[in-house]
Amino acid sequence: MGMSNQWSNDPRELLRPGADFDLATFDRRGTPGWEGDKAEAKELMDSRGALLYELQERLYAEGRAGGKRSVLIIVQGLDTAGKGGIARHVMGYVDPQGVQLRSFGVPTEEERSHHYLWRIEKALPQPGRIGLFDRSHYEDVLVVRVDELVEQEVWEPRYDEINAWEKELADSGTIILKFALMVSHEEQGLRLMERLDRPDKHWKYSPSDLTTRANWDKYQQAYQAVFERTDTDHAPWYVLPADRKWYSRLAATEIITRTLIEMEMTWPRVRWSDDVQRRKLADTMTTASLAESLAATEETVRSAIEESIDVKLEAAALVGRDEETTRELADAKRQELLAELEQNIAHKRELLAARDDAPSGSEPAEQDSKKSKKSKESGKGGGKGKKKKKSKKGKK
Amino acid sequence: MGMSNQWSNDPRELLRPGADFDLATFDRRGTPGWEGDKAEAKELMDSRGALLYELQERLYAEGRAGGKRSVLIIVQGLDTAGKGGIARHVMGYVDPQGVQLRSFGVPTEEERSHHYLWRIEKALPQPGRIGLFDRSHYEDVLVVRVDELVEQEVWEPRYDEINAWEKELADSGTIILKFALMVSHEEQGLRLMERLDRPDKHWKYSPSDLTTRANWDKYQQAYQAVFERTDTDHAPWYVLPADRKWYSRLAATEIITRTLIEMEMTWPRVRWSDDVQRRKLADTMTTASLAESLAATEETVRSAIEESIDVKLEAAALVGRDEETTRELADAKRQELLAELEQNIAHKRELLAARDDAPSGSEPAEQDSKKSKKSKESGKGGGKGKKKKKSKKGKK
Repeated sequence: MGMSNQWSNDPRELLRPGADFDLATFDRRGTPGWEGDKAEAKELMDSRGALLYELQERLYAEGRAGGKRSVLIIVQGLDTAGKGGIARHVMGYVDPQGVQLRSFGVPTEEERSHHYLWRIEKALPQPGRIGLFDRSHYEDVLVVRVDELVEQEVWEPRYDEINAWEKELADSGTIILKFALMVSHEEQGLRLMERLDRPDKHWKYSPSDLTTRANWDKYQQAYQAVFERTDTDHAPWYVLPADRKWYSRLAATEIITRTLIEMEMTWPRVRWSDDVQRRKLADTMTTASLAESLAATEETVRSAIEESIDVKLEAAALVGRDEETTRELADAKRQELLAELEQNIAHKRELLAARDDAPSGSEPAEQDSKKSKKSKESGKGGGKGKKKKKSKKGKK
Repeated sequence: MGMSNQWSNDPRELLRPGADFDLATFDRRGTPGWEGDKAEAKELMDSRGALLYELQERLYAEGRAGGKRSVLIIVQGLDTAGKGGIARHVMGYVDPQGVQLRSFGVPTEEERSHHYLWRIEKALPQPGRIGLFDRSHYEDVLVVRVDELVEQEVWEPRYDEINAWEKELADSGTIILKFALMVSHEEQGLRLMERLDRPDKHWKYSPSDLTTRANWDKYQQAYQAVFERTDTDHAPWYVLPADRKWYSRLAATEIITRTLIEMEMTWPRVRWSDDVQRRKLADTMTTASLAESLAATEETVRSAIEESIDVKLEAAALVGRDEETTRELADAKRQELLAELEQNIAHKRELLAARDDAPSGSEPAEQDSKKSKKSKESGKGGGKGKKKKKSKKGKK
């Protein structure tokens, strides 16, 4: 957690294009706000894995419980800027089932027959999901403007239209983050040449990349206009220097993480009674299995509680909340959860005791006999909490 | 590579339900064909990362070059069987942009108004992609049959209909793999109880899980029927024991990897001339940048070639091809690629030499001056090959 101190400032403040932002003098090799080196960046990102994983899971859970919020991450940039790397990274740290990845190429005939926002609206993330767009409606004021695919009087009004559309989207509960990966002309040349040189990257090269590159200055102007006219508080732009891929990935991960933390997501409350469900479930389990579950409960739940509290503390530290208050809140939460745990264990003991005293009626009894056949197959319940940790480590 | 020997047999042979397959006696805690332990399983899976990553990239490249092939992975299983874990794993090892993940829940009103295959067809992977279905059209002969959502005369013909539909799909170039995760009644009880006990997993529990669990035997019969009637050579079923999550994930990864290897994908040939493109690209680069690129070429391309040959050898060993023949083929390929490399380097030398002798005309000159401002931003080309390796390691 302390590692987050390698950020001198919140990258969201450092990378927003201000009123006086000038892309022409923007250092595309810079690492604004990062006081560590490349290796430390990798370390920090990996150490974020469990946090990001849980934050996304909370968002997903909120959506399943009827929440309306979602996150839309828009990634723009010229060829070789590293858009795909951002996708791989966000995906790498969270459960892919919670992410909707969409890449927008040249519009199909059907897409062209509709308003340019039509295909975008169709791809918006559902509640509880993170939507990641590789290119987006901004192409309709970038390539469309540079290649003059439509008249200026057609693309000119789009900036305001996009702002209004994004405002509506934000008001409906979608948190919008817009990343522009800015690679230098020099670095793009090196990366394109590498594609030409490497047999395994050859297929990524297209002669049309040179046509786009020839329009470099026009694209820079078009991006400058995008930043000047569509950087809003409801849908902020973050301009990421992209000559060092590790930095742009680090900054994007950090911005996404901090944004998710500030969404203040908590596990949804359920509308059914734990005790009733536990009793009904126990009725379907063999006595041996119930005993096994009881034996595992303490370790499994405690480690889950501790892990989730660690995440809470890391999150709080990351967004610079007061450490003492945070710790007090965490301790209170821990006490509450441990009290629940004790009740649950007590309840399971009762259920097991009842089972021992008087093996329940014919229905369960018959089930017992059926399942005792399966007993040898049954899993050791112990250490399931660890299993979960592993699966998280797997994300990193 | 030698590690693949921990598989006593090809899991595709061991996990296909034969004519005499009986789900009632199927050991859901077994680890058929795996002679290693859990830790070795994790090791092997991680060692597969680079291989899987490159195989998926080749498939994607093939699709971009006009190839028609795709892969469809269908994952079925009752609650807590670990369907999500399979998704996380496949996604974890490959570029998520090459994977189309789709989860099929209770049909929407619109979906219900169409044929049951309508929503499935809409979600099929595009050429070059891997489609991963969490549940599928098989729900229309599973839950639909168990809950009697339609009459038997409606679901009964679906088995044949599905076989015919999958045959057409396979003939059109989609490789189909169907995984059934079979968890024991005992283990499902333990996993459901854990969801009840753990505050962070609570939201995953639903009282309806108990209704489904109450229909356990009916579901087993429905799955048995699915295996008897829809396990075909064009769309095979693999029944994975799921009480040990690590095994079902290992087996799925292995089956997917071997299937991709046997698709014999090669990097697509390009239709344009390298030399022309290299010259044109060089014209857009500063002399310093071109020199930097030249200096990096040897190391970058050699490491890319070696990596891709390692992958070839691993792949060949995995599907048990003759080692000597494989090595001869690999050496021949290496010679071919190294010869190309030498030509490319020679060409870049020429281009640079020409640059030194006579700095090219006004157009490039003006560009030079523009870009020399950026020179300090330019990246060190050296070790880009390593960068790629890192990004792969990132997958693991």
